[in-house]
Amino acid sequence: MITTDTKILIVGLGLIGGSYARVLSKKGYRVCAIDTNPDSIDYALGQGLIEDGKTGPDPALCGAADLVVFALYPTTMIDWIRQNQHLFHPGTLLTDVAGVKCGVLEVIQEFLRPDLEFIGSHPMAGREVYGVRNSDESIFKIANFIVTPTEKNTPQGIAAARELGQLLDFHTIVELDPATHDEMIGFVSQLTHAIAVSLMTCNDDQNLQDYTGDSFRDLTRIARINEKMWSELFLLNREVLIRQIDSFTAELGRMREMLQRQDRPALEEMFRHSTRRRALFDR
Amino acid sequence: MITTDTKILIVGLGLIGGSYARVLSKKGYRVCAIDTNPDSIDYALGQGLIEDGKTGPDPALCGAADLVVFALYPTTMIDWIRQNQHLFHPGTLLTDVAGVKCGVLEVIQEFLRPDLEFIGSHPMAGREVYGVRNSDESIFKIANFIVTPTEKNTPQGIAAARELGQLLDFHTIVELDPATHDEMIGFVSQLTHAIAVSLMTCNDDQNLQDYTGDSFRDLTRIARINEKMWSELFLLNREVLIRQIDSFTAELGRMREMLQRQDRPALEEMFRHSTRRRALFDR
Repeated sequence: MITTDTKILIVGLGLIGGSYARVLSKKGYRVCAIDTNPDSIDYALGQGLIEDGKTGPDPALCGAADLVVFALYPTTMIDWIRQNQHLFHPGTLLTDVAGVKCGVLEVIQEFLRPDLEFIGSHPMAGREVYGVRNSDESIFKIANFIVTPTEKNTPQGIAAARELGQLLDFHTIVELDPATHDEMIGFVSQLTHAIAVSLMTCNDDQNLQDYTGDSFRDLTRIARINEKMWSELFLLNREVLIRQIDSFTAELGRMREMLQRQDRPALEEMFRHSTRRRALFDR
Repeated sequence: MITTDTKILIVGLGLIGGSYARVLSKKGYRVCAIDTNPDSIDYALGQGLIEDGKTGPDPALCGAADLVVFALYPTTMIDWIRQNQHLFHPGTLLTDVAGVKCGVLEVIQEFLRPDLEFIGSHPMAGREVYGVRNSDESIFKIANFIVTPTEKNTPQGIAAARELGQLLDFHTIVELDPATHDEMIGFVSQLTHAIAVSLMTCNDDQNLQDYTGDSFRDLTRIARINEKMWSELFLLNREVLIRQIDSFTAELGRMREMLQRQDRPALEEMFRHSTRRRALFDR
């Protein structure tokens, strides 16, 4: 159980790590942080988001932590844990915020000390801005928090991850196995970003912005993309994403054939199907 | 020049025709309308959007009109003009609101009486709702109005179409030749709708809506689509749209190859290009 005595350590004070710190410290929990950027630590200390902070894997901070949240890029997190896991006391619970799970959990749970537990979490919140200075407690209130247990996790570890999602005021907390999570994310998040980027880069006409309406702006909002983070997420989940790209491309190709054979009834049926299906996603 | 003596006839009182009537009558212009739906005419008369209205090609209304705006689906408009152009007095200026131009203008300007003029217009405004009851004068204020002259048009006809766009309070009024218009629309509007629909229909998982974030909702907002209108627009511009689908699919395929060969530098460069290019479209 997470109590006000629990020592929470956040490694990586970006938008998500910073927003975790903001909500938890406001609610009276004890939060410390590690971030390589001294400016992020100074800002978080000055704003009262954390009670202590260091720019490296400080033995005292790590040794005191009961719950550690890694809000780093996946490959950075894997390296960090590999190099510094000896600093944690037995029983420390580790969790993360990564947007893909299989490629992360398989690796970490394989090399993790047996007296530590790593439970996967994915806060489905994000914005087109970055850094602790943009941290915002309100981004979680409409978002899903997904816990992804494996056979390496304990009921206590899973319960603590769910509890963390509740403390952070997520709208919904659900459990999915890592493979189902990655399949779903490959469609609703990664495929949409792949489409937005390709739409943005497939036409270099410099005059298009003069004629662009809301449709094009909506479809390309997420084409402003953090290249380091998304290339990691794409590559870690590349088999799923390639399959999703193929399924989408086949469907677009089906529409192309309808156009070529001027099959108006088929087009109309596809549009009706689309309209019916989209109605399920209204809120 | 359009004056308060100009008799304006709107054929088709849907969202766009109704919004034209709303703005113009509010500004003191004389607006009549024809729509096959008596309820639309009654509503428009009751709301003061028009001073007279009929449910068919009334000879008196048509014979009195100086400026006629066709706010019908393209093929319906073509048939309507072919059957009823004899009702107009010499010198009447006709215009439209259709989202594609080449396939419409070529046909109409070919059979049109030589003492009439048809000038193409495309108000780039629309919403996911339909009908005169949803008409709204504010939808034009942020939108482009595109006039598409051909060699069959007179300077006076072109000027009157531009003036109409100004009276309707469009944000920007521009001229494009019909082929350039259709090429641009094939990309910014039709390709985006083709993508949204295909994304919506390529995956029938019934549980996706539980995990859907803003990215997916943004990309599929326009997947609720009027199947009659959009199948017409797609088919009238099918050669351009097929070319745009091919160019987009090739770009998405390029990304797929980067994933397959795990080429992180290439992915990062594509994301940077996308981010730079998207910045041009902010407003």
